[in-house]
Amino acid sequence: MSRQTGWSYFLSFAISMKFNKVNNSILSELRSICGNKNVQTDSDSVNRYGSDETEDLFFAPEVIVFPETAEQVATVLKLANENSIPVTPRGAGTGLSGGALPIFGGIVLSVAKLNKIISIDEQNLQAVVEPGVINQDFRTAVEAKGLFYPPDPASLGSCFLGGNLAENAGGPKAVKYGVTKDYVLNCRVALATGELIWTGANVLKNATGYNLTQLFIGSEGTLGIITEIVFRLIPKPQHNLLMLVPFSSAENACEAVSAVFRAGITPSALEFMERDAIDFAMKYADVQFTVKEHIKAHLLVEVDGNDPQVLMNECEKISTVMESFDCDDIILADSSAQKAELWKLRKQVAVAVKSHSIYKEEDTVVPRASLPLLLKGVKEIGSRFRFRTICYGHAGDGNLHVNIIRENMSDAEWNKNIIPGITEIFRLCKALGGTISGEHGIGWVQKNFLPIVFDPVQIEIQKKIKQAFDPNGILNPGKIFPDYCGSTPVSFS
Amino acid sequence: MSRQTGWSYFLSFAISMKFNKVNNSILSELRSICGNKNVQTDSDSVNRYGSDETEDLFFAPEVIVFPETAEQVATVLKLANENSIPVTPRGAGTGLSGGALPIFGGIVLSVAKLNKIISIDEQNLQAVVEPGVINQDFRTAVEAKGLFYPPDPASLGSCFLGGNLAENAGGPKAVKYGVTKDYVLNCRVALATGELIWTGANVLKNATGYNLTQLFIGSEGTLGIITEIVFRLIPKPQHNLLMLVPFSSAENACEAVSAVFRAGITPSALEFMERDAIDFAMKYADVQFTVKEHIKAHLLVEVDGNDPQVLMNECEKISTVMESFDCDDIILADSSAQKAELWKLRKQVAVAVKSHSIYKEEDTVVPRASLPLLLKGVKEIGSRFRFRTICYGHAGDGNLHVNIIRENMSDAEWNKNIIPGITEIFRLCKALGGTISGEHGIGWVQKNFLPIVFDPVQIEIQKKIKQAFDPNGILNPGKIFPDYCGSTPVSFS
Repeated sequence: MSRQTGWSYFLSFAISMKFNKVNNSILSELRSICGNKNVQTDSDSVNRYGSDETEDLFFAPEVIVFPETAEQVATVLKLANENSIPVTPRGAGTGLSGGALPIFGGIVLSVAKLNKIISIDEQNLQAVVEPGVINQDFRTAVEAKGLFYPPDPASLGSCFLGGNLAENAGGPKAVKYGVTKDYVLNCRVALATGELIWTGANVLKNATGYNLTQLFIGSEGTLGIITEIVFRLIPKPQHNLLMLVPFSSAENACEAVSAVFRAGITPSALEFMERDAIDFAMKYADVQFTVKEHIKAHLLVEVDGNDPQVLMNECEKISTVMESFDCDDIILADSSAQKAELWKLRKQVAVAVKSHSIYKEEDTVVPRASLPLLLKGVKEIGSRFRFRTICYGHAGDGNLHVNIIRENMSDAEWNKNIIPGITEIFRLCKALGGTISGEHGIGWVQKNFLPIVFDPVQIEIQKKIKQAFDPNGILNPGKIFPDYCGSTPVSFS
Repeated sequence: MSRQTGWSYFLSFAISMKFNKVNNSILSELRSICGNKNVQTDSDSVNRYGSDETEDLFFAPEVIVFPETAEQVATVLKLANENSIPVTPRGAGTGLSGGALPIFGGIVLSVAKLNKIISIDEQNLQAVVEPGVINQDFRTAVEAKGLFYPPDPASLGSCFLGGNLAENAGGPKAVKYGVTKDYVLNCRVALATGELIWTGANVLKNATGYNLTQLFIGSEGTLGIITEIVFRLIPKPQHNLLMLVPFSSAENACEAVSAVFRAGITPSALEFMERDAIDFAMKYADVQFTVKEHIKAHLLVEVDGNDPQVLMNECEKISTVMESFDCDDIILADSSAQKAELWKLRKQVAVAVKSHSIYKEEDTVVPRASLPLLLKGVKEIGSRFRFRTICYGHAGDGNLHVNIIRENMSDAEWNKNIIPGITEIFRLCKALGGTISGEHGIGWVQKNFLPIVFDPVQIEIQKKIKQAFDPNGILNPGKIFPDYCGSTPVSFS
């Protein structure tokens, strides 16, 4: 594994936080809490748990623990808190903002052994799970009972539900069904100080005290560690239809997106892929698929529901909208196999780009109708800073993944241009009413851009919340909050 | 107006909080901030703004201010904070938990003059409003553009959107479309310390920092004062159908509720009314409507969407479910007038009960399938404590409004039984996985019941959040947090 030695390292050393090391006495206590087999310090484990899917970053943990109960999680936290040892919670390590990286060493606390689906309540359309359950396993289990859990991040085959909560994960279905936060009724959380609390109640409506549930979702493991989740579920829609719509103009494709909603239709997915994205994915996933020479972008549009005729009518309406934006010949997937192939293409874009080159993935999000302006701006910024971008993502939500790829850029040029380029992209998001992460989180890699969207008062109030939950700052330190917080948005020089 | 002199007063005097009085110098500063006409101290105003729709409580404010800009709101807060003067934010005063009551006197800050619909963005299906806009006025404005804002509390003709956010208001449509919190993308808030911040961004997905937006929603004016709201909207469904389903057994009616969802249908309203509720409403609203002698409860069921045939099919499916729970003859409303009449009956229940007798309204909520157990338990508790209850509400959400009516009970019996009776009802909610407020909030009247559902750790962490936002405790003091917080859930003796 190549290990980045650029500005990230510089910053980690520049931060003066006082943590203690994991000594033999702490190790022995961790073993007595979690059991010998659930405490690892070997170099293979250190290597594995020092990275996640975020770029090629690495920070060595001192020890990795795998508690098997909520009480063990809480006891580990109490020990760490009393001894000022950092604790980095870890799901499946599929995050893209470095949320699971143990920046200051210390303890990585994996929830991999908290992996039970505790109950699926068909009477109430609810389920109770532990955080280490894989998203797809959960979907499969509830679908067997005719129920549906919509949030479907691209990593759904391996990511954990706990991590999905920590980052408020989305996915294609979000455009109709909402993101992770919209399905969590209640969670049990181990606090930094070693207590276990429930954040709410198992009800669809709740006006009882502050919304702690929503405060934990998206807090990236900085306020507590989720040990149990109560989800609401919905009846599974029985049918869906999928269309691939090619455009000879990427901006026209973006323009068509908000027009679909204005026509009164809410698709169950509305994805955008630039030409490069689909070319990369075809090559990587070995999918053969003919794309005409002049095509510059595709929209992938799904509708779902219980009445096939209604869906067909919606597809016709959508086609009419698409044609008014000068699309090419629309492909309506006519079999499960073809649907699966199209979705495979879409879901392989991220890994395809990653396999191609060093890259930075930005998770921009703007009001849906501003998507054409965002795309145009990204291209203009790219040409000014001389980097290539590949754009794709959840267009229906205004959530565009901008992959900045390095390819043959020199170290010097890459290091000189990447931060100012990203800064300009994020300033554009802000100017369009948007923000710098739609579904990946801030974590480690975006934190120094936070002052672009939040002023010092906004950041300070969030720090006070952090302080209320984690007075010694042991929980996932080095994440979300910028190293600098002044009038200059980003200053990495 | 009769003014309650029971345990509420006792508690308000028992709390030792140190606030200063509004003296002439403060009054003069308030006039210079808001303008002379927007500062009131006359006795009519004091009487009017000392009460809200909650029972018959009264607490005299010292001054009422009507700021016209966000900056004025922030400046009033800064002044109050520096001088330790309590500030009670007020919407339309339609709340049912006493959220707008100025328990410690001081300043009532009305948002009535922040009442502009700033923009309705048809491109993005978003709207920006000030907090003093009346819910119905907003609905009408967006519906004129083919858009829909679902949250529809019974007071929608007079309640303010700001108050809807403060209490996370629901209403019948919540069962399909969610509550207020599900439509707020971003808000501008004046903090106790006098700064103005935005809580998020105008986007459908956001993984950028803590979810401050959801922290403010339902915080009942204790963390800041909302001065501007960005809502998301949805396309307006073009058709709906409404059915009234009578049952000779109230428990059967409750049993039928969760069966509808298990059949794969999500109605746009699923309301429950006990026989007494509909009888009271008919008498109060002067609606003539024949209800057979043996009928003990009704369900009011609405479906909506864009295809009339699909809706008719759903009604048939719902009828089949209802019949399997032994319902009587179903009425399908066949005209707008008949639909309006049925909704009028449902929406008048609360005021009808209020006009009948001194009462306490409890806003119980449990997982949907536990509704029959909740209803049975409420009746059993009522018979043990010798009070009559009238139950109705948003059955599809498991949200049952329990009206405890005093009628001819003596002072002594009422005072002796009411707190222990409510305590048992709330303990039952908790035991069923539910909580003590679904959509009305905790405010003043429910706060001492909070320890039934939250242990001291949960309450303490919420207090720390409050402290982070409002270090001097000037914002809506006396609300949400119990006067006692120990191992005994409620101890009012």
